[in-house]
Amino acid sequence: MPLSRTPASKATNAGLKEQLDRLFNPRSVALIGASNKLGKWGFNTFSLLLSDKTRAVYPVNKNEAEVLGQKAYKTVLEVPQLVDMAIITVPFKDIPQAMADSIQKGIRAAIVISGGLAETGEEGAQVEQQVLDIARRAGIRFVGPNCMGLFDTSSGFNTVIFLPQVKRGHLALISQSGNSGQSIISLGTEAGLGFSKYVSSGNEADLHFEDFLAYVAEDEETKVILGYIEGLREGRRFFELAREITRRKPVVVVKAGRTSEGAGAARSHTAALAGSEVVGDAALKQAGVIRVDEIGELIDVAQLLLGQPLPRGRRVGVLTIGGGMAVMAADALANQRMELAPLSSTTIEKLDSLLSRRWSHGNPVDIGGDRFNYDCIRPLVEDAGVDAVLVIGPPPATRRFIEWFRVYAPWITNIDELRKLGEDRDLVELDKVKEMIVKFGKPVVFSSVGLNVTRQGEVYGKLEENYLVPYPTPERAAKALAHLARYSEYLNSRE
Amino acid sequence: MPLSRTPASKATNAGLKEQLDRLFNPRSVALIGASNKLGKWGFNTFSLLLSDKTRAVYPVNKNEAEVLGQKAYKTVLEVPQLVDMAIITVPFKDIPQAMADSIQKGIRAAIVISGGLAETGEEGAQVEQQVLDIARRAGIRFVGPNCMGLFDTSSGFNTVIFLPQVKRGHLALISQSGNSGQSIISLGTEAGLGFSKYVSSGNEADLHFEDFLAYVAEDEETKVILGYIEGLREGRRFFELAREITRRKPVVVVKAGRTSEGAGAARSHTAALAGSEVVGDAALKQAGVIRVDEIGELIDVAQLLLGQPLPRGRRVGVLTIGGGMAVMAADALANQRMELAPLSSTTIEKLDSLLSRRWSHGNPVDIGGDRFNYDCIRPLVEDAGVDAVLVIGPPPATRRFIEWFRVYAPWITNIDELRKLGEDRDLVELDKVKEMIVKFGKPVVFSSVGLNVTRQGEVYGKLEENYLVPYPTPERAAKALAHLARYSEYLNSRE
Repeated sequence: MPLSRTPASKATNAGLKEQLDRLFNPRSVALIGASNKLGKWGFNTFSLLLSDKTRAVYPVNKNEAEVLGQKAYKTVLEVPQLVDMAIITVPFKDIPQAMADSIQKGIRAAIVISGGLAETGEEGAQVEQQVLDIARRAGIRFVGPNCMGLFDTSSGFNTVIFLPQVKRGHLALISQSGNSGQSIISLGTEAGLGFSKYVSSGNEADLHFEDFLAYVAEDEETKVILGYIEGLREGRRFFELAREITRRKPVVVVKAGRTSEGAGAARSHTAALAGSEVVGDAALKQAGVIRVDEIGELIDVAQLLLGQPLPRGRRVGVLTIGGGMAVMAADALANQRMELAPLSSTTIEKLDSLLSRRWSHGNPVDIGGDRFNYDCIRPLVEDAGVDAVLVIGPPPATRRFIEWFRVYAPWITNIDELRKLGEDRDLVELDKVKEMIVKFGKPVVFSSVGLNVTRQGEVYGKLEENYLVPYPTPERAAKALAHLARYSEYLNSRE
Repeated sequence: MPLSRTPASKATNAGLKEQLDRLFNPRSVALIGASNKLGKWGFNTFSLLLSDKTRAVYPVNKNEAEVLGQKAYKTVLEVPQLVDMAIITVPFKDIPQAMADSIQKGIRAAIVISGGLAETGEEGAQVEQQVLDIARRAGIRFVGPNCMGLFDTSSGFNTVIFLPQVKRGHLALISQSGNSGQSIISLGTEAGLGFSKYVSSGNEADLHFEDFLAYVAEDEETKVILGYIEGLREGRRFFELAREITRRKPVVVVKAGRTSEGAGAARSHTAALAGSEVVGDAALKQAGVIRVDEIGELIDVAQLLLGQPLPRGRRVGVLTIGGGMAVMAADALANQRMELAPLSSTTIEKLDSLLSRRWSHGNPVDIGGDRFNYDCIRPLVEDAGVDAVLVIGPPPATRRFIEWFRVYAPWITNIDELRKLGEDRDLVELDKVKEMIVKFGKPVVFSSVGLNVTRQGEVYGKLEENYLVPYPTPERAAKALAHLARYSEYLNSRE
């Protein structure tokens, strides 16, 4: 049975904003389904909520007098204080009652975490419709069901269990899969990126992807919007919103379920396709949305958008510490329809003065056995025919080399001094790179080639701080750059 | 000037084997170009050679009386003992003399590490030709120039600087790029894989990729052969060798320089294309060679080939802990032309008995909010319609969950006990998975979704030992499985 999805009551933008403000920053929260049983959603979520000392949290549990040491209530109606928001983790058949109780208590916002609804078939779909009807009649807005909730790093509110420590920052993420959301946030955190807001939108019975999109578009903390989409309920609204937003804030989405097999799997997931519209690639393109193929790419592109200017064209200057890397980079760029910039004679001369005769004398610049020299980046950035620079090889390799010397060359007695010298140089040079990026308005991107960067120390901190964490492969760097080049072309075409 | 590449003197296979045996396991080595100057090739390489206590090493340096505390010789001719092999790191113009001296000393094998030869233009090409002529007249065989040398984990001989600690194992790697070789070995080591032999073949003036291929094909330690190729000098020989070898040992190659831009970069790298033949995809396919797109994929495929049976077909059963993962897996498999196996009614019944009603009741099996249960793998492996199983989500997530509980649920007082219980269960269950793989002759592959697996502890050790280290994305798992399926089809078609 397809759900009848009556349009949400025409909330004004101001009304929607106020409602979502409450969802992302409630003063007090009741957890209906709070539990003492280790491993239950109601246990995990309540543990997490208790770690937030800034807001009141009330456990609701039919059978327990206390949950994790807090006085528990049989229903939310018994809570003596005002409650701003309900989080619901009870079994699916008990959700309508929990929602009705919440309304009676005067609660205006809820997150229904429980699954087992429209995504499981007829019986669940009926319960979901019932919950929606109850909520709509009272004007309560809710996230889910079948979701993991949300967080807001500026309000400090968080309902999402099993996440790593998330840094406050400028990425907003809206995900139609809770697990994919976890993955995207973990990947972003690993790359040193911070988030402003996250919502796992689940079955989207009431609040839709589009509502959250409109909301984060106006959020000042949010500079880049990421989305994981299986299907959209308001395709036309999405398109219109996106077309307006992308002029001022990039929107990057991964559209899962692109194959018929994937779409089949999506159907039994968030029930996302019931009554939803398929968003075609052409529409996404027309709206200026950056569409990526998989979740890792979301973060690859986000890092560039947050930290680098848009390239003015597709001509890339490549600097590598090895010939194999040069070949792989050239292949990777060509596969993304990026171009190898021909180098000006001035650039060649500058490089001649920095490198031994072994260098490749062309683009890619392969330094061919010389030691890596940051100075070689500058001529490429200064070349008027170069729109972006890709540097392949370590930096920063100081730690890796030092550790090798420690094992194989114990006769180097001042190894720690050398390490400090090397790392100090890395720090100074990375600042210079950042200055060049700003001064010339051209992106400079680092990539390794399968060699893991040591994710610690001051140099790594500097890379993170400047959004220069190396991509693990030239392929990923090239793909991210190509997305930026296309976005840049899109913006220019709309001017 | 294209080099005239006269064919190597027709060494019998036995002759070639004996010569290469000496290269991979010399009794004594002279390093011509050994240096006291930190950071020089001759310093790094000599440091490395000295760490090997099983063979005599003699430093040759025109100007120094000692190198790193060892008596140095002005030329190799001055070394009073027998010398089996020369390693040459002197500037390019001095190589002919070093080679001539080596021959006069009676040395029969050499590695020319120095670059600056045919890959840099006319002048270097002339020197390379001169070196080759000298060597050919005397019957000395050599690796390089412009290479990083080789290692052999069974003889313990190693000339390759800046590598991580490499485990002894069953992968042989032949790489036409030294840096790519480093990357491939690093990636393999990170995945817990061991290597038998490695050679960075460089400009291949004398010994060609094909010579090394023939050699490792007969090496008992080597079970899988990996190659990084920019261009082949003996395409026909490669084809014939590969066609014969792939019947008994898989050969996996990445062919760099596939785009015209990449081919251009290759030309100024190992000078690999001078006189070389392009190996087409069709020829690789016909020879049963597994061709991958980038170096990470070499290791992805190697892990499967080393640890798992070949799938008998393309029908995959997928088990996931989340709906988003199910969608991504279905997309990833479809993109690789793998199939989602329809599940038998028996399999559905078995899963019904293991899972709550929320599960997806089809393939992919999305457990939909239930806790992950290893038992769900077995029905998929037992289903006659399933050729391979892909498990997406953690395992092993015990550590990640425990660390989260440690922060957010300090009221769990027996957290270390829970961790031990969880990890013990992981260990037992992973053994069972391994048993199933062997018993049913079907691969079972794990994949995460961007969530980094904790690379430590006993559970991770078990994953490594059983070649079950999770792929970081479903896309990479699906791609590796598809390579195995095609290889399996190839072998069947030749039977």
